[in-house]
Amino acid sequence: MTETDPLVMRSAREQLRGLQAREFSARELLDAHLRRLERLNPTVNAVVSMDPDAAFRAADEVDAARAAGSALGPLAGLPMSIKDTHATADLRTTYGSTLFEHNVPTADDEIVARLRAAGVVILGKTNVPEFAAGSHTFNPVFGTTRNPYDLTRSAGGSSGGAAVALALGFQPLADGSDMGGSLRNPASFCNVVGLRPTPGRVPDPAAGLPYFPLSVMGPMARTVADVGLMLSVIAGPHPADPLALGEDPSSLADVVPADLRGLRVAWAPTLGGRIPVESEVSHVLDEAVAVFGAHGAHVEDACPDVDGADVVFRTLRAAEFDHAWGDVVDRQPDAVKADIAWNVEQGRKLTGREVTRALAEMTRLRRAADRFFDDYDVLMSPAAQLPPFDANLLWPNEVAGTTMTNYLDWMASCYLITALGVPAMSVPAGFTPDGLPVGLQVVTRARSEARLMGIAAAFEERTGHGRRTPPLLEIP
Amino acid sequence: MTETDPLVMRSAREQLRGLQAREFSARELLDAHLRRLERLNPTVNAVVSMDPDAAFRAADEVDAARAAGSALGPLAGLPMSIKDTHATADLRTTYGSTLFEHNVPTADDEIVARLRAAGVVILGKTNVPEFAAGSHTFNPVFGTTRNPYDLTRSAGGSSGGAAVALALGFQPLADGSDMGGSLRNPASFCNVVGLRPTPGRVPDPAAGLPYFPLSVMGPMARTVADVGLMLSVIAGPHPADPLALGEDPSSLADVVPADLRGLRVAWAPTLGGRIPVESEVSHVLDEAVAVFGAHGAHVEDACPDVDGADVVFRTLRAAEFDHAWGDVVDRQPDAVKADIAWNVEQGRKLTGREVTRALAEMTRLRRAADRFFDDYDVLMSPAAQLPPFDANLLWPNEVAGTTMTNYLDWMASCYLITALGVPAMSVPAGFTPDGLPVGLQVVTRARSEARLMGIAAAFEERTGHGRRTPPLLEIP
Repeated sequence: MTETDPLVMRSAREQLRGLQAREFSARELLDAHLRRLERLNPTVNAVVSMDPDAAFRAADEVDAARAAGSALGPLAGLPMSIKDTHATADLRTTYGSTLFEHNVPTADDEIVARLRAAGVVILGKTNVPEFAAGSHTFNPVFGTTRNPYDLTRSAGGSSGGAAVALALGFQPLADGSDMGGSLRNPASFCNVVGLRPTPGRVPDPAAGLPYFPLSVMGPMARTVADVGLMLSVIAGPHPADPLALGEDPSSLADVVPADLRGLRVAWAPTLGGRIPVESEVSHVLDEAVAVFGAHGAHVEDACPDVDGADVVFRTLRAAEFDHAWGDVVDRQPDAVKADIAWNVEQGRKLTGREVTRALAEMTRLRRAADRFFDDYDVLMSPAAQLPPFDANLLWPNEVAGTTMTNYLDWMASCYLITALGVPAMSVPAGFTPDGLPVGLQVVTRARSEARLMGIAAAFEERTGHGRRTPPLLEIP
Repeated sequence: MTETDPLVMRSAREQLRGLQAREFSARELLDAHLRRLERLNPTVNAVVSMDPDAAFRAADEVDAARAAGSALGPLAGLPMSIKDTHATADLRTTYGSTLFEHNVPTADDEIVARLRAAGVVILGKTNVPEFAAGSHTFNPVFGTTRNPYDLTRSAGGSSGGAAVALALGFQPLADGSDMGGSLRNPASFCNVVGLRPTPGRVPDPAAGLPYFPLSVMGPMARTVADVGLMLSVIAGPHPADPLALGEDPSSLADVVPADLRGLRVAWAPTLGGRIPVESEVSHVLDEAVAVFGAHGAHVEDACPDVDGADVVFRTLRAAEFDHAWGDVVDRQPDAVKADIAWNVEQGRKLTGREVTRALAEMTRLRRAADRFFDDYDVLMSPAAQLPPFDANLLWPNEVAGTTMTNYLDWMASCYLITALGVPAMSVPAGFTPDGLPVGLQVVTRARSEARLMGIAAAFEERTGHGRRTPPLLEIP
């Protein structure tokens, strides 16, 4: 295999088939990914910690088990770096914070344990914003992750390192998390697929506030089918997560492209006038949604009730930030970035009644969404309101002529959907005239990930945007 | 059938068998219950609204369907009055409040709809405290419900009317709800079985605050097996309850008495010194727990971590009360009882951080309970800290020499368990020297209702306390 072997750009399923057919070994697969990573990562800064020796040992174990005819997990031999906010045993995990700069966990987080048990070969860690706060990946420990389609631009975030690692063929699958768009925004910015599942689908037995159903973990990949494969491994019951959904997740691996004929599509290009969207993005998405119409779907301008969603998201996020980092901000005010301190401050001002009301409102919005999805099979809206922006900014100061006043404003396209409690995915939808990726946000009823993936897979099948690989040769 | 026909004291399962064998019709079964009710209810005030005509029509429909060989629901033909805090279509539902004194809902609450769909014949409504607040059943609309074992004493609450209706043979099954003990306390006071399920087991698509997992709905009956039968009907997925557990509930109907040999029982007679308990209660429960030891269980003094449970419960309850009734208290301060206004006032003082922390603490406690149940199969503790008390009191002023300062204090035996997020049941455990019932609280791991019912059924089988009917002849 040469360095430019397209093996690394194959889907996870194709790589698994190659392993099973002994076309190549897990060691060879890891080696191909590692060489790719060593060549390109210094330019983009997507993977920030690595333990190749441990990875080769893990790959050798998979190869030995296969040679011995032992049972292998569903992802056996796939190399993967893990989001740096998810703890990995014996592998440095910094959360993008100087407070954890030298932290080496002794145990895996549950999502990591499930991936490892499924046979994933863990290679390193993908970069994140400080404590995953904000949708632009930079931090004081490792610096900025750059967009592979334009190195001067943001990769998005918080799962920014993960999205870039996928786009450049450092790994076929990636784990992400998403409170206000952290799985969807970097997928949109990097032309990959990111799925925010229903809260509880991917259990988090370590979540401090599971009853604030904002933050979830989920899968990313270059194809929708791979997202389903990964979801089937990381989803499923867990006794210590009170919101964990009890259903057997194994069937989630079988992503069947939906029949688009007669599909009832609600198209909300500005979420009912609530979000400014750059025209370059709108043009791409208008064309993308037209694909559904061209294949027999009924596309209609419609938006679910998102009144109050802004207050719900900002209230619960602020309360969660104060809970998580309030004491840190008090003791070491300079230990976290200003945007986190600001968010903590917002939380500190909240009354009990405001927090309680936000949880009640989130319930009301979820039920309204449920009724909306009696009338429509799927909602489509922008994953991001603008194309990848200047990587030197902390956050975009303006979107389509509207001034953004804090680091959350420009993320409303995603976080308003978070407040509905529904699953949402960003799927590659095309490129701006400058060649920057645009993601279509596809949304369905709570707990309906299978349906969501089927619809996204049908779109992917017809457009193939996700198969356009990055302009690698332009990377210095 | 005569008025004293023991038919009405048969279990729900026995009544169903009689219906299936055409030993009697649904009309006859309803008639027997109605005559019993008409004779005894004026003394105890358990059933407060009735529509016998509608009930006879429903019974006739069941009989006609059976005659026609149509498919029948699992509870077809069982007569039942519904808790007056659960809305019944076309049947007055007051919540025990003058604010809803003339309220006639147009639709059933989900739990009622499920019971009706299963073939239950709805006869009337069971009495509750005002808005189900407090564990003593009295309200300004209907007055006080009296204990069938001593008419001068409280029936407990908030499912007090339901417990009395079961104890006196007005119905074989009853629906209840439980925030701080409302399914367990009246079961204990009236010698019947009440199960508080895991939050989400019985979905509530109308719950305003499902993310505050305190208040749940659940089944009551005279036998554990009947509780399981009813649970299998009212449990199960619902899209509009974000906490709804997804598992198929049908197997919950099969209650298999557990093998007590080797069972690891944790016995916490005072929840680790945190609750005062009257000695008459302690003596009964010591003997009850000894039954487990005598049948081969390993009984050990042990208590899960309940530090912080008091603050969790009081904080979330107060926040929920302020959310639900804060505006009412502002506009019509005299429209709710003083204890509710006090609870609203407690809620109004809370900061956002206190509410957030309570939800985080509840999560921590649930996880600690989960680890506790790695070491013990079951926890046992008092369902109530004292026997049924003087019905003229608002709440007991003292328990075992300790002064109670508000209407919640005396309910800690139940509400501390609520804060752990686990299922709990009160099962009849014997009587005080004065002939007053005492309930044993049986608690297991979250989502383990089947196990819980199996253990309780084994105890029931060996003791038969629940089969001792009330001293009916002493009722004037």
